[in-house]
Amino acid sequence: MGRVTERRRTLRIRDGAVSSRADTLVAEEPLEIRLNGKPLAITMRTPGDDFALAAGFLVSEGVIAGGDEVRSIVYCAGATADGVNTYNVVDVQLAPGVVVPDITLERNVYTTSSCGLCGKASLDAVRTSTRHPVGEAPPVRLTPELLAALPDRLRAAQKVFDRTGGLHAAALFSEAGELLDVREDVGRHNAVDKLVGRALTDGRLPLSRAVLLVSGRASFELAQKAVMAGIPVLAAVSAPSSLAVDLAAESGLTLVGFLRGGSMNVYAGEHRIALEAEAGRD
Amino acid sequence: MGRVTERRRTLRIRDGAVSSRADTLVAEEPLEIRLNGKPLAITMRTPGDDFALAAGFLVSEGVIAGGDEVRSIVYCAGATADGVNTYNVVDVQLAPGVVVPDITLERNVYTTSSCGLCGKASLDAVRTSTRHPVGEAPPVRLTPELLAALPDRLRAAQKVFDRTGGLHAAALFSEAGELLDVREDVGRHNAVDKLVGRALTDGRLPLSRAVLLVSGRASFELAQKAVMAGIPVLAAVSAPSSLAVDLAAESGLTLVGFLRGGSMNVYAGEHRIALEAEAGRD
Repeated sequence: MGRVTERRRTLRIRDGAVSSRADTLVAEEPLEIRLNGKPLAITMRTPGDDFALAAGFLVSEGVIAGGDEVRSIVYCAGATADGVNTYNVVDVQLAPGVVVPDITLERNVYTTSSCGLCGKASLDAVRTSTRHPVGEAPPVRLTPELLAALPDRLRAAQKVFDRTGGLHAAALFSEAGELLDVREDVGRHNAVDKLVGRALTDGRLPLSRAVLLVSGRASFELAQKAVMAGIPVLAAVSAPSSLAVDLAAESGLTLVGFLRGGSMNVYAGEHRIALEAEAGRD
Repeated sequence: MGRVTERRRTLRIRDGAVSSRADTLVAEEPLEIRLNGKPLAITMRTPGDDFALAAGFLVSEGVIAGGDEVRSIVYCAGATADGVNTYNVVDVQLAPGVVVPDITLERNVYTTSSCGLCGKASLDAVRTSTRHPVGEAPPVRLTPELLAALPDRLRAAQKVFDRTGGLHAAALFSEAGELLDVREDVGRHNAVDKLVGRALTDGRLPLSRAVLLVSGRASFELAQKAVMAGIPVLAAVSAPSSLAVDLAAESGLTLVGFLRGGSMNVYAGEHRIALEAEAGRD
């Protein structure tokens, strides 16, 4: 439980020289998320913050949108033949009165009963299911200089990456550029779910004044998680996908990509970026 | 259909200078995979090689292990209200006599009916379900020099990455280091499934003399795909996870990580690496 890293013996080969040593690896274990006792999904994750991961996952999937909709989150113990709790199964009980959606084991926002599955349907599903529309959030404006400073702050806060090189990171920043929270995980979607789940538990949803920074690329899935949590700005160190850009444009999300070395590309939601030309006009 | 990249307008900010231009992005679209007409899974992928992706996914999940077990793979058309084929739904019909497994929408190898979910159970599920055990494959031995040369060959073969920076790549090499096939996708697991699916269709499974190289990290899921396709060597440019190493050790898979600049770490299956010290003893 909570093992973020593990040690394994490895054979190191460096320009012909061979040595044997122990190496620190990022831990990966399956986590089954149950909803009111019923299996919902399994994700491969780095152990730790499992309750936050489960809660954040349910926000991303549109099941819950506030901390008061959760009654309890517990590790599911004792059902194995030998009675051991593996700390790899989490059960989320919803508060009385919260409707349990008819969701299958597959991610419900993608699910379709017709042959009409397409990117547009995926966009519509997210846009119509979020209960924290970012377009209705209070205005947030960020300078390029503030955004450019964030990757170094994320990197400095990454504890496990330095030891393993095997972790994705996600962080929340305030609109003043302060680091609010950071999570690392073997799966980039898990790192974001952990951030969102912690915010939900702390009563901080929607994250309507926060910036979400991810260490890698911006996929549709990550843009979806930002939209569902009411986060107005998603910034990625690497490239976005076409569908991430489309979802951002449709949902009013500001999407910044290739944020590195003082440069960035703004793919959607430019109105939240305070450009110098405008400042000069003031 | 088959749109690997898409163009979107972006605002570029370079050290204070702002310009507007069109940017090339990697295309991302959902693909629903059906088995004998029944929805099985949805993956976000880069369009193209969809039949190979579906076939490779089914190999990874243990549904099929040879090309003769597939009767047909088709795009599912015309079921939308407007009759449009979105080329985002693929139906795989199994050959007569092939048993359709009782799989849910979730990945079957992880599924558990008890609370005993753990990494060990995941390892056992893969090890016992593969029909191409790598331990029983003909011996393959590779020199560190040969392995060290592979990343540059992969990089040279990556067509779309140069334009978008948004793609993961996976490649198959022969034991002589020749590039056999390369696939790029917004999802690293999809790139591997496309390689394996193409090999299945071409009658090249098991890939018992091949090396699989991935551009990023080596997760449990990628190690699982190698084991299910009978690939004896998995090499990754970045770090492996603990569970990927454990699966490799249990399954007889050779796992190489941090393969870059003439260096590498061998985490499992060292017997397939021909070291200079041994050569000197000959």
